[in-house]
Amino acid sequence: MEPFKCSKKWVSTLFSVAQIAKFVDGRIEGAAELAINQLAPLDSAEFGAITFCAQAKFVSQISTSQASAILVTAENSHLVKNTAIIVDNPYLAFAKVSQWFDWRSPIQAKISSRAVVAKSATIANTAQICAGVVIGESVIVEDGCYIGANTVIGDQCVLGAGTRLEANVSVYQDVHLGQNCIVHSGAVLGADGFGFAKQAKGWQKIYQLGGVRIGRDVEIGAGTTVDRGALSHTFIGDGVKLDNQVQIAHNVHLGNFTAIAGCTAIAGSTHIGENCTIAGLSGVTGHLNIVAGTHITAMSLVSHSIKEAGVYSSGTGIEKHQSWKRNVVRFRSLDKWVKRIKSLENEMQKLSSKKQ
Amino acid sequence: MEPFKCSKKWVSTLFSVAQIAKFVDGRIEGAAELAINQLAPLDSAEFGAITFCAQAKFVSQISTSQASAILVTAENSHLVKNTAIIVDNPYLAFAKVSQWFDWRSPIQAKISSRAVVAKSATIANTAQICAGVVIGESVIVEDGCYIGANTVIGDQCVLGAGTRLEANVSVYQDVHLGQNCIVHSGAVLGADGFGFAKQAKGWQKIYQLGGVRIGRDVEIGAGTTVDRGALSHTFIGDGVKLDNQVQIAHNVHLGNFTAIAGCTAIAGSTHIGENCTIAGLSGVTGHLNIVAGTHITAMSLVSHSIKEAGVYSSGTGIEKHQSWKRNVVRFRSLDKWVKRIKSLENEMQKLSSKKQ
Amino acid sequence: MEPFKCSKKWVSTLFSVAQIAKFVDGRIEGAAELAINQLAPLDSAEFGAITFCAQAKFVSQISTSQASAILVTAENSHLVKNTAIIVDNPYLAFAKVSQWFDWRSPIQAKISSRAVVAKSATIANTAQICAGVVIGESVIVEDGCYIGANTVIGDQCVLGAGTRLEANVSVYQDVHLGQNCIVHSGAVLGADGFGFAKQAKGWQKIYQLGGVRIGRDVEIGAGTTVDRGALSHTFIGDGVKLDNQVQIAHNVHLGNFTAIAGCTAIAGSTHIGENCTIAGLSGVTGHLNIVAGTHITAMSLVSHSIKEAGVYSSGTGIEKHQSWKRNVVRFRSLDKWVKRIKSLENEMQKLSSKKQ
Repeated sequence: MEPFKCSKKWVSTLFSVAQIAKFVDGRIEGAAELAINQLAPLDSAEFGAITFCAQAKFVSQISTSQASAILVTAENSHLVKNTAIIVDNPYLAFAKVSQWFDWRSPIQAKISSRAVVAKSATIANTAQICAGVVIGESVIVEDGCYIGANTVIGDQCVLGAGTRLEANVSVYQDVHLGQNCIVHSGAVLGADGFGFAKQAKGWQKIYQLGGVRIGRDVEIGAGTTVDRGALSHTFIGDGVKLDNQVQIAHNVHLGNFTAIAGCTAIAGSTHIGENCTIAGLSGVTGHLNIVAGTHITAMSLVSHSIKEAGVYSSGTGIEKHQSWKRNVVRFRSLDKWVKRIKSLENEMQKLSSKKQ
Repeated sequence: MEPFKCSKKWVSTLFSVAQIAKFVDGRIEGAAELAINQLAPLDSAEFGAITFCAQAKFVSQISTSQASAILVTAENSHLVKNTAIIVDNPYLAFAKVSQWFDWRSPIQAKISSRAVVAKSATIANTAQICAGVVIGESVIVEDGCYIGANTVIGDQCVLGAGTRLEANVSVYQDVHLGQNCIVHSGAVLGADGFGFAKQAKGWQKIYQLGGVRIGRDVEIGAGTTVDRGALSHTFIGDGVKLDNQVQIAHNVHLGNFTAIAGCTAIAGSTHIGENCTIAGLSGVTGHLNIVAGTHITAMSLVSHSIKEAGVYSSGTGIEKHQSWKRNVVRFRSLDKWVKRIKSLENEMQKLSSKKQ
Repeated sequence: MEPFKCSKKWVSTLFSVAQIAKFVDGRIEGAAELAINQLAPLDSAEFGAITFCAQAKFVSQISTSQASAILVTAENSHLVKNTAIIVDNPYLAFAKVSQWFDWRSPIQAKISSRAVVAKSATIANTAQICAGVVIGESVIVEDGCYIGANTVIGDQCVLGAGTRLEANVSVYQDVHLGQNCIVHSGAVLGADGFGFAKQAKGWQKIYQLGGVRIGRDVEIGAGTTVDRGALSHTFIGDGVKLDNQVQIAHNVHLGNFTAIAGCTAIAGSTHIGENCTIAGLSGVTGHLNIVAGTHITAMSLVSHSIKEAGVYSSGTGIEKHQSWKRNVVRFRSLDKWVKRIKSLENEMQKLSSKKQ
């Protein structure tokens, strides 16, 4: 007999609808004992899968979905063919359930014989240290940490319990990560900030003596770089989420729960408040203060402090190259054209007054 | 006797003009037996080298070139002092010939004793696995693959025949690459997409359950990141070329032969058609459709779908900081100035009509 | 007895004020024999620390500082409570002193048994090669070099004396670095330039046969990529400083002492003169010439050569999203509005002339 169809053939655990409903604090309408072995999109979920409907535009797909179970709001549960799990926020419930289907293997408590760990380091018995890892002096790795292959950790670092470093991460000396962080491959934490003093000829390096302090539940994307501080630490608050290829310069402060999308750069000593979101390819120049609850749209450059929460943007928007070329020429003499508008207004006023 | 001068002293193979002409389907005018040991620019090529002329502005350099052979079009062959190889497209012929002078050593079929390969992995006898490589469970590495030092490959990945991963590449679980791909150092394939659901306080991670599917003849630049899909796969078509530090978010679809230059980011679930080119430092926001044959100029932000092929741009163009500052101030009140133009037009019309 | 309080407990060396003053060529006012064990910011420095005052706005903090010694200009020395070290340029003096407090351990001359070094490589006796390093054929590593864990160096590379590669750096074949360079983790030197010739279907790779030549005292940031040249070399002059995630394309030439901030990209064959500064997230398109002494502000796109030194900018500046949206709509028809201004001017002239 065929098992349930599942694109991830190495997932063998089955969950019951009842287990899932309990986990997301949902109410079941339909069969609670159905076995679930997959999480799938609404339009392609098959029997055996659980799915969700989180947006009004997808409601019409509920009634034809083959999924064994659907996470829905109360108002849409009557549309579900098989089993409905009623929750207040189906998107959040889906997010919570997703971890049950993750591809990561459970932590295997062991230190690979191909890893190199300094004698002064303290590695919890429950941590997994993969092949090729190099760990420096006095490092502390707490319970349930995972350190992926070929990751390098400098002296005096601390990894809080449950923190996961994927393969090929580089952590310099004196970087502390809180509990349950995830750091993706290619990320570099604690490299020197970009600090130089101008001298007669060229630049004198300012050695970067601070470290990096990272809170709990922080996720740091692939290729993202977080520089160490110059004299004090660079700081990343709890629950901060950084996408891939983000650049956090020395002595930046990121408030709790702030999220920054790919390829954005925050320049040195800038302080960003809590619960901000910054879209991709954006920049914030140095020594600024960005108030909590600020939202920046994609490819915007923030070049002054923001004191009032809200949405901010820059740029010209995309257009056909031919018309753009004409407009850009005008932009580059915009000040002149505004002055000519003003002259016209003056002349107009003279003319009109003469009329009267 | 001095051998032919050659900046790459480790290239010992010599090719004859005849061999090269045959390879590029060219016609020889001059000596076919000349030995070639180097590929060089037109203005500095010495005897022993082959070169090419692909642009009208360089035609004047042909007659003084010391090169043993020059790839030229028929109309320019009479200018060549030594041997001409006549082809329709000298630039393409040059590109084809360049591989004969590449610095990469031929694949040495062996698995380094310093590599760690899971027992369940299948490695072709003709593949080369360098020192420090770590290969996960059930990975398939086909004929003639090269896996550079300290590269890490997660479980259930597939590398098509002839694919080359340079040093320090990170590949997560469930990433498939087709035949003859090249992935450069520092690239990260299959890291988690940036997916989170807002919750009462901060963000709930959406585990990223999809993988990455990459076609054949794809090149991926240094430090480029391609995220895994959320529920289905991220997809990169055949012949796609990604430069360095490009960011491809989860569930993006890149059509065949599309090329993307350095530091560009494509946000989640965006679908880009075939044969597009996107210049460097550009961005495409999420959930868009970009039609085949679209070209985006440097540092442009595409924030809506593009339905008509063509060239698109954004930005203001560079100018002196002093004048830029004045113009930017005007930009930020542009709407007001346009309204004042309209008022002037109204008044003008009134004035003019009174006149008549 | 308690030792001096010091946030870096592994710094055991103490320096005297006299030693430091001599090193920075400063004049002491106060006790020369005080022991210094820390470098700290002016407002938080405690007894035992040295600090500095480099900006007028911080002068008021001098008199209350607890620091044992302060680097100041002559005019401010009377404000110092403990010992003043009088120098012409306190910021530069601070920068020089910073290296004495760096966290890096002194080089330990040895090759790790976990490193893999080709027999044809020449490694100076005084160099340190860490675990997991892989070094290719004919590489030359000069005196006092440091090669961090899991860094990979391709064939025929040269590392000048005192050069330091941090962990997880990737260096391809034929890359030469001068003396006293620093390359941070995740950097990739010598990957293939992005060169392809259009063919009937897709792209023909142009193999990149040049190398990379890097001068002395160059610093290269984390995740920064410097591509190898197509036929000749990519060139980086002496004293150049590249921040994190900078992209230097094939055959770029960077003049001495030029500094480039994070996430900036320089496209192929562009020549940038000496002593330029380019702020973060900027771009310079290919085949341009940028004259010495040019300064580019953040997120600017340079799309034509610059012949006159000065400050250049592009972009629209940040503003509230609502007003930005209105202004951007106007920008996209700016050419039309300028024409309407011109029409108004014509009509105005007609009206005015009729009047007279």
